[in-house]
This record gives sequence, structure tokens and C-alpha cells, in this order.
Amino acid sequence: MADELEQVVAELRRVIAADFPIVSEVNEHLLQMKGKLFRPTLLLLSNKASGGNTARAITLGAVVELIHLATLVHDDSVDHSVLRRGLPTINALFSHQIAVIMGDYLYSRAIIELVRLEDLEALRVLARVTNEMTVGEMRQLEAHDKLAYGEGAYDQLIRAKTASLLSGACEVGALAAPAAFRQGLARFGMLLGMAFQITDDLLDYTQSEAVTGKPSGLDLREHKVTLPLIAALARMPADSPGRRVVAELMEAAEPSDDLVADVVRLVEGAGGLETARQRALELAQQAEAELDVLPPSPARDALQGSIAYAVERRS
Amino acid sequence: MADELEQVVAELRRVIAADFPIVSEVNEHLLQMKGKLFRPTLLLLSNKASGGNTARAITLGAVVELIHLATLVHDDSVDHSVLRRGLPTINALFSHQIAVIMGDYLYSRAIIELVRLEDLEALRVLARVTNEMTVGEMRQLEAHDKLAYGEGAYDQLIRAKTASLLSGACEVGALAAPAAFRQGLARFGMLLGMAFQITDDLLDYTQSEAVTGKPSGLDLREHKVTLPLIAALARMPADSPGRRVVAELMEAAEPSDDLVADVVRLVEGAGGLETARQRALELAQQAEAELDVLPPSPARDALQGSIAYAVERRS
Repeated sequence: MADELEQVVAELRRVIAADFPIVSEVNEHLLQMKGKLFRPTLLLLSNKASGGNTARAITLGAVVELIHLATLVHDDSVDHSVLRRGLPTINALFSHQIAVIMGDYLYSRAIIELVRLEDLEALRVLARVTNEMTVGEMRQLEAHDKLAYGEGAYDQLIRAKTASLLSGACEVGALAAPAAFRQGLARFGMLLGMAFQITDDLLDYTQSEAVTGKPSGLDLREHKVTLPLIAALARMPADSPGRRVVAELMEAAEPSDDLVADVVRLVEGAGGLETARQRALELAQQAEAELDVLPPSPARDALQGSIAYAVERRS
Repeated sequence: MADELEQVVAELRRVIAADFPIVSEVNEHLLQMKGKLFRPTLLLLSNKASGGNTARAITLGAVVELIHLATLVHDDSVDHSVLRRGLPTINALFSHQIAVIMGDYLYSRAIIELVRLEDLEALRVLARVTNEMTVGEMRQLEAHDKLAYGEGAYDQLIRAKTASLLSGACEVGALAAPAAFRQGLARFGMLLGMAFQITDDLLDYTQSEAVTGKPSGLDLREHKVTLPLIAALARMPADSPGRRVVAELMEAAEPSDDLVADVVRLVEGAGGLETARQRALELAQQAEAELDVLPPSPARDALQGSIAYAVERRS
């Protein structure tokens, strides 16, 4: 895959190229910031596993990564995040304004590229997914009653925010394949994406800044309610001291390090981390089962391997 | 046209509809804020004047207005504007975050609708135009050396920021027409759009807040250099007192009302307003000449009329 992922990066570079200085500067920073190319990897594997044509899949992989980047740039701006993968975000390094405009620039470049490929089906999938992601971001902003936020709302959020694009990547890789493969891979990506996001939310509780490139306990500091806390709260009686500490954190504009650490301990003590881990594994198993529709191949095995990566990673 | 524009609004309402509360709320506000539907009007007229099919043009008109709205929502957020057409902006009424996400929501809905129409050519034109608009926004942010900002840079800016979408609207209205009509209408829209933006920039110097719904002299307050000032500066010698007053305004973080009024008077005294008016009329004449390619029709006459609207409007 290493060779193909290098081609994806070259395609990405071509698609976002600009002759306007500030845009080129931001592009260079984004190319440094790029992560493990998980979405293009899924797209390429999905393509191979369903018997597709790799050349087109490389460009589509670049487009999917580009949509991911556009989303990250806007998300970081909306969340006022200062670090991403250990590097300063676009809003922190340049400005809020440039982050908003660059997100639009990147997304419109992705559409231009899909039009150039004359690929209406890929456009259909990826436009729908992008729209779902914006609704996911709204859901995240709008979670007002933190202590009543339930697993149903959380599932909707992580589907929209994260799993939809992983599902889209798998589906777009299999557009030329029989419907059963395409649909199975779309479901695989959705389940994998949910497991991936739950793992991410767990890492926020368990990993240090040095490993993830983000301050730990950041979600709690920002009053984001994720599965570990939801599961822990479900086990705390209405007037328990634990619930009062969580309420205190949610009411504090800037919770202290001690308060964050207290809630992390409470969540762990109430089995919130363990429940979230179990849920991620359950989704991972469901994802694996979806692969049964495909004929055996090294690519199918690699997709199976990507499940392990999603739920076992440390950053 | 009134009946068709009502259908455009109904289509717009359908395309942006959402079952998520905050999105519906923002949508309602945007529908109240909608202006004179100049872009759908141009698209419909361009369609009729080139012999097109109105039903599709109505949906495309809604999409073009939607792209315009998405751009306004992000522009207002980037500029921290608080008023638009006399109503509070999305960033002012809701939040900066919601404005960023809603712009993305609206734009992705526009793409979904174009995919639903299976209209690759319209997608090609409008994706290119949207990308040009983002580069135009960057140009606006990046104009550092205010006093050296020239007419060439200004032309590039207004083409990208404003004229590209008017050109796109005219072109998309004529996609089914012979190439000569399509190209002529695209050029017509570009010239008209430049005249339209110059007129807008003039109104910022000449009209009161009560008429435009924006504080007057706002561009100067925000250190935006437009054609009236560029033309005036071109006639001020290097060390003239006038140029020093302009420099003082550009250096003031928050210029006083008196300073803004001084620069407005200086620009008028140096003939900057008159030069900008002449330039708008020149572009209007060039736009009119492009219509000669079309056969005579009421729609062609109405396109001619839209030129007068663009350069003679008072708000």
C-alpha cells in the first residue's frame, strides 16, 4: 500500500495546488499535518477487495482525504482548537478567517475534481456524507443538557460526524462492484467508523498529550459528553456525589485540572471506560461480519486488519 | 417573472429543508433575509433568452441563490459583520460557529441538488465559480499595502468575489444553448457583475445606513480599498496632505467618524467617485454589447434592463 498511498498524496497535492501565495502556504502546512491516510487506505482496500480499478481509486482516495481535511480545518476553527496531530491548527497558525475560507477552498476543489472524473455516483455519496457531517457538527454544538445526553444521541452524533465519511470512503471504493459488495462495504465503513470514534473518545480519557498531540481530558474541558461519561452516568443514582462532581465540571467555564482528573477517575470507577471498550469491540465484530460478503483476498484481510487498527490504536 | 421567482423560493425552501431544529431555525432566518434574487433572475432570463427549458432553470436558480447564501453566511462570519440587508447576520444572531457550519450545510445541499439533477455541466461551472469566490475572499484578506493597491488587483478581486457567480448564473441558464450564446452570456454576466460590484462599492461612499442596511463608509472603516479610493489615490502626489490622511485612516485600528468623513470628502474631491461611475458605465456598455449575439426577445430586453438595475440602484 505504501506506494499507492504515496500516489494518493501526489494526487492530493495536484488537486489542491493554487497560484495564490497564502493558499499555497496553507496547503504546505496541511500536507505536513496529514495523518495516516486512513480514509484513502480504506477506499483503496475496498476497491481491491471488490475487484475495482486502482488508477481511479487513487484519485478518489485523494478526494476523500481532501474532504476530511476541509472538515478538520472548519472543525478546528469552530472548536477554537490550537493543536492537531501535534502541529498548530490553521486557525491558530494563520487566522480564524483564513481557516473558514481555506475549508471552502479545499471542499470546492474536491468537487471540481469529482466533476473532472465525471463521477456522478461518487459525487452523490460524498455530497451526502459532507452534508451529514455538517449536521453532526450541529448536533455537537447543540448538546445542551449535558447530564441527560444519552447513548442514542451519541450514536447519531458519531455516525454523522465520523462514521459517515469512513462509510463513504468504503462505498466509493466499491462503486463499480456488485450492489451487495457496495452495500456491505458501506455498512462495514459505518460500523468501523463508530468503533473508531468511540476509541478516539476513549483515548481522550486514557492517553497523555505527548502521545495524541492533544491535551488529555480535552473533551471534558470543552464539556463534550462522550460514551465513557454517558455509560458512567447511567450507573450513578440521581443524587449521588459523583453526579454532582460531573455537574460541577459541566457548569465550570474553565474546569480546573483537578476537577477534570476527578471526573476521569469517577468515569473509570463507574466502569464507563470498560463499557465503551466493550461497545467498540461489539461494533468491530459487526463490521467484521460485513466482510463475509466479499471473496477471500489479501485486500479483504487488510480490511479486517483495519478494524484492529481502529480499536487498538494508542493515538 | 414574479411567479417564477416565487417558484425559485419554493425550490430553495425544499432544497435546504432539514429535520434538525437549529438548522431549520437558521433556514427561516435566511429565507427572511433573502434579497432581490438577482442571480436566479439572471439565470431565468438567460435561459429564456437562449431558448431553454424553464422547469430545470427554476431549480438551478434556487441552487445559484443557495450558493450565494452560503457564501454570504461565511463572508459575514469572516468579516464579523453584524448586519445584512437590515437584518442581523447568522454569526451575530446565532454564533460564529453556527455560521461556519451552516455555510457548509447550505453549500453541500446545493451540490446534492445538482447531483440529483444529474447536471454535470452545471456542477462544473458552479464548482469552479465557488472555488474562485474563495480565492477572491483570500485576495480581500491579503491586501496588505493599502495605499499601493491598484486597479488591476481590484479587478481581479471583484471578478473572483462577485462577477464569477453572476457569470456562472448566466452561463448555467444557457447550458443547453449553442456555444456562442453560452459564452456570450457568461461574458455578459462577468461584465455585469463587475459593474454591479463597483456600484456596490460606490454606494458604500454615497448612501446612508437607512438605505443600504449597512453603516456607511463601512469599507473605509474596515480598511477595504475599493475603486473610488484607488482612483482618487492615483491623482494624489506622493507627499500630498490628502494621501497622508488616507494613510492615517489605514493605520487607525478604529478610525473615527470624522476621519472616515474626511476621506470620503477627499475621494469625492479628487474625482474618485466620478471615475468609478465612469468605469461602471463602461463595463455596462461592454455587457450590453455581449447581448447582441442573442435573437431579439422580451428576455433579452429584460437582461438589458438588468444592466440598468445593476448600475443605477440606490441600495
